[in-house]
Amino acid sequence: MNKQQLITEIHKKQSFLCIGLDVDLEKIPSHLLSLEDPIFEFNKQIIDATHHLAVAYKPNTAFYEAYGIKGWKSLEKTIQYTNKNYPEIFTIADAKRGDIGNTSTRYAKAFFEDLAFDSVTVAPYMGRDSVEPFLEFDNKFTILLALTSNVGGLDFQTFTNKQNQKLYQKVIAQSLTWKNSENLMFVVGATRPDYFKNIRKIAPNHFLLVPGIGAQGGNLQEVCQYGLNKDIGLLINSSRGIIYASNTESFAKKAAEKALELQQEMATMLKHV
Amino acid sequence: MNKQQLITEIHKKQSFLCIGLDVDLEKIPSHLLSLEDPIFEFNKQIIDATHHLAVAYKPNTAFYEAYGIKGWKSLEKTIQYTNKNYPEIFTIADAKRGDIGNTSTRYAKAFFEDLAFDSVTVAPYMGRDSVEPFLEFDNKFTILLALTSNVGGLDFQTFTNKQNQKLYQKVIAQSLTWKNSENLMFVVGATRPDYFKNIRKIAPNHFLLVPGIGAQGGNLQEVCQYGLNKDIGLLINSSRGIIYASNTESFAKKAAEKALELQQEMATMLKHV
Repeated sequence: MNKQQLITEIHKKQSFLCIGLDVDLEKIPSHLLSLEDPIFEFNKQIIDATHHLAVAYKPNTAFYEAYGIKGWKSLEKTIQYTNKNYPEIFTIADAKRGDIGNTSTRYAKAFFEDLAFDSVTVAPYMGRDSVEPFLEFDNKFTILLALTSNVGGLDFQTFTNKQNQKLYQKVIAQSLTWKNSENLMFVVGATRPDYFKNIRKIAPNHFLLVPGIGAQGGNLQEVCQYGLNKDIGLLINSSRGIIYASNTESFAKKAAEKALELQQEMATMLKHV
Repeated sequence: MNKQQLITEIHKKQSFLCIGLDVDLEKIPSHLLSLEDPIFEFNKQIIDATHHLAVAYKPNTAFYEAYGIKGWKSLEKTIQYTNKNYPEIFTIADAKRGDIGNTSTRYAKAFFEDLAFDSVTVAPYMGRDSVEPFLEFDNKFTILLALTSNVGGLDFQTFTNKQNQKLYQKVIAQSLTWKNSENLMFVVGATRPDYFKNIRKIAPNHFLLVPGIGAQGGNLQEVCQYGLNKDIGLLINSSRGIIYASNTESFAKKAAEKALELQQEMATMLKHV
């Protein structure tokens, strides 16, 4: 999927919602547990019920890896099901990878080619040659961790140099000089609304993937105030708040209700862009 | 495995060699390709031929993930084979993970419990709450990326604050204040021998995992000069230089010859500790 297709979908659905598929067997409705692949079945029902309200889905790969080979099968089936039935959906492998060049190339192929995700999250610590192998893929996006929503995000990401530049600012500014930087997006936590204005000065045109709405305490309106750009430029993620809205047999319907609430808030925001 | 057992093995084998199992189907001997699981078969023969010369093995998980579910099966068989036949070996999942707390817990369980690795490499960018879930496991080690051997390692890791502290120094110093920090080790590239002296001032007692010998240009003697401590404190990794020493039917024998060369150099170094 290219950037323009994503923007078109956002306008069509009046939504820039991303749903995080962080699936935990201990949290899903118990009636699914007797099925052959409860995780895939859960995802399938969530996606079927919410695909008209969201533009993106983001499985966090840790949740799948935790179940070993069975988990990888569930992930593979989830992405295949989504790509086949909802090709207009933007898919994100939240994998936070990053390694020396030849190894990053391996990861890029695994996520972009074998699993056919549209994008993957990547950690910046190892620098340019750990990220550029991901950027080489046309119409695939590399979502670099910049300022994360967790408490520890401030341990190193706001480390400040003599020119008063913080590490996350350096990561964004420097990565924008790399080859194929038009294929970059950035993770910026919703728990840091006061930083968005500054980030938009450094990266006015790039999409930001924003976790931390809901359970983590981020506020949608504050994020939109400084984060929206002419292309909309935001993907707001919600995971637990949507997918675990209920653990009854009508969990997918309840998830859709929660997604609808966020979509309607977003539609209101879009009127002001 | 606990730290003392690792140190005892190093003295017994007169070796602090780690062999990187970065297995690529395009590089392994062609006679293995007709077997049911060529990657496992390759690893098995390498380990059988070198286990008396090395104290650790380090599969880089990217190489396995690149082959999807088949790759994960090869990884699982490799670690099970090693743990069963050579329980004295220290195993490292070179996965470079790191995510928000509940997700890191997932990763920790996947690598420490399900796959039963002794250690896993972790990226520090997301800070304390992304790393501490790994540190909770007794007799398991979290190997934090500090100063990596690749060119891009200097893009952000030497970012310097007003007090002249560099990011990698901050990562090491700050992580040593975290809970269960005795379960930490650090990745420090062999391509940066001039930094070892300073790193030993910050972390005099912790083990360092050192990639970058051989193909990447690092020098064993230089690393040892400043890196060795009273517990030895170094695990020197070699991947391609050993496992791809030959791609003939006698590849494992050739790998053992290369491993022996390094082991003998190490035995000499150990005389001076």
